[in-house]
Amino acid sequence: MITVARVADLRARVAEARAAGRRRVGFVPTMGALHEGHRSLLDVAAGAGRADFVVASVFVNPTQFGPNEDFAAYPRTPEADAALLAGAGADLLWMPEVGDLYPDGAQTFVEVTELTKGLCGARRPGHFRGVATVVAKLFAAVQPDVAVFGEKDWQQLQTLRRMTRDLLLPIEIVGAPTVREADGLALSSRNRYLTAEDRPRALGLSAALREMKERRAAGEKGAAALLAAGRAVLAACGVERVDYLELVDAETLVPLETLGAGPARGLVAAFVGKARLIDNAAV
Amino acid sequence: MITVARVADLRARVAEARAAGRRRVGFVPTMGALHEGHRSLLDVAAGAGRADFVVASVFVNPTQFGPNEDFAAYPRTPEADAALLAGAGADLLWMPEVGDLYPDGAQTFVEVTELTKGLCGARRPGHFRGVATVVAKLFAAVQPDVAVFGEKDWQQLQTLRRMTRDLLLPIEIVGAPTVREADGLALSSRNRYLTAEDRPRALGLSAALREMKERRAAGEKGAAALLAAGRAVLAACGVERVDYLELVDAETLVPLETLGAGPARGLVAAFVGKARLIDNAAV
Repeated sequence: MITVARVADLRARVAEARAAGRRRVGFVPTMGALHEGHRSLLDVAAGAGRADFVVASVFVNPTQFGPNEDFAAYPRTPEADAALLAGAGADLLWMPEVGDLYPDGAQTFVEVTELTKGLCGARRPGHFRGVATVVAKLFAAVQPDVAVFGEKDWQQLQTLRRMTRDLLLPIEIVGAPTVREADGLALSSRNRYLTAEDRPRALGLSAALREMKERRAAGEKGAAALLAAGRAVLAACGVERVDYLELVDAETLVPLETLGAGPARGLVAAFVGKARLIDNAAV
Repeated sequence: MITVARVADLRARVAEARAAGRRRVGFVPTMGALHEGHRSLLDVAAGAGRADFVVASVFVNPTQFGPNEDFAAYPRTPEADAALLAGAGADLLWMPEVGDLYPDGAQTFVEVTELTKGLCGARRPGHFRGVATVVAKLFAAVQPDVAVFGEKDWQQLQTLRRMTRDLLLPIEIVGAPTVREADGLALSSRNRYLTAEDRPRALGLSAALREMKERRAAGEKGAAALLAAGRAVLAACGVERVDYLELVDAETLVPLETLGAGPARGLVAAFVGKARLIDNAAV
């Protein structure tokens, strides 16, 4: 695995790979602090003939953090990240500096207007504008054929699918299933913020989603009843600061009153100790 | 010259040209109603080794028109456009429909925040958001090496240069000098709106810019004095509805008080009869 920082070096390496006969370039953008969930994204990128040259990027993107969020504190583990990516089969690691992605005087932003209105978009103003902007830049630099994002950030995945389609980018967007601990906790770089006392409470998120899924499987179609059951689980687990718990159309993210026709998704965000955690599941 | 509508057909033709050994794809996006100014953009694209395969597009972009502007009335002359482009040496003409560029549910927009605050951006809310968005889409579809825009839309040219740089698009942006009638009137598709009585008044725009340029050459450095001289020319020509007349830094578009250090640009917009005309020049 080769590591580059500058956009010009990245482009040269990707061009070399294509000239050498690699037909499909896969791309896994990350913010580093990598875990097994990220490794699975690499597996998905290289699997099923999706890509024969895989680029991973590590960049903690300042424009997707709000002024009171954890940009400065966000875990940065570049050596461990490089080791994990090399072990996971990445061909090229791109670790740009802020100035590579935001040149002096940068003032261009990409916004996806509807999908970002609710859920995390409502609680983190400007977050998805920052995400869409940086991913548009990353895509322009790498020019991949396929890019893989985790389903754990479901709203992000849908937003980036929409952006890619709307901007006519010739890139296939693939979602990779959430990787979980044995007890159900979704892997997240922010799990590092959890103390020993926080850890059992953090299970409330996945447990609430599981409860809603089970009740739905048992016949309950009313969103209000399902959400009440989910909230009860969160409370029983000691999760007090719930940011949101919603049942939405899986693609449009519009809140549902009754489940039935299309695929529904349950999404939850909550503070546990210092960590703001998110999770989601098909319901 | 081949004409295509669908994005897939456009991509196939461009890919064919590249496979056949064309090394540099040039792109001239237009809204049709073509005139000699557009022909000059084609000449610039094909000149100086900039491109050996030139794509032109004709698309009247709805998102850059305000609700009270002339989207419906904007002149549409597809047959004449195709003839002019074939004669000007375009290799491929792309005439997409609205649905090709704005698929169902499209909700992604590109914004350049600072350069679009003043001048036409202040008078036409959303205009440059529409321009940046559609050009980002056109660029993604054509993937040119070089794109040519007229200097007549100076704020647009600077905005698209900035967007291209900020989004890391590997595209060279070239500005082509404004083409004028013998008497100085800048060519514009909207000149068709001018009646015989309007036509002499429309000369006020270029005359005002010329007056400022001459006074600057004669030593006047104060923006206020230069603008007063320009406004006097507009008034003398009978141009009553002046939208703006400004002297700005040519690149940042920040208004100047004193001319001297960097390149300065005079920009003017005014209504003459039913037409809103714009013009600009180095001062």
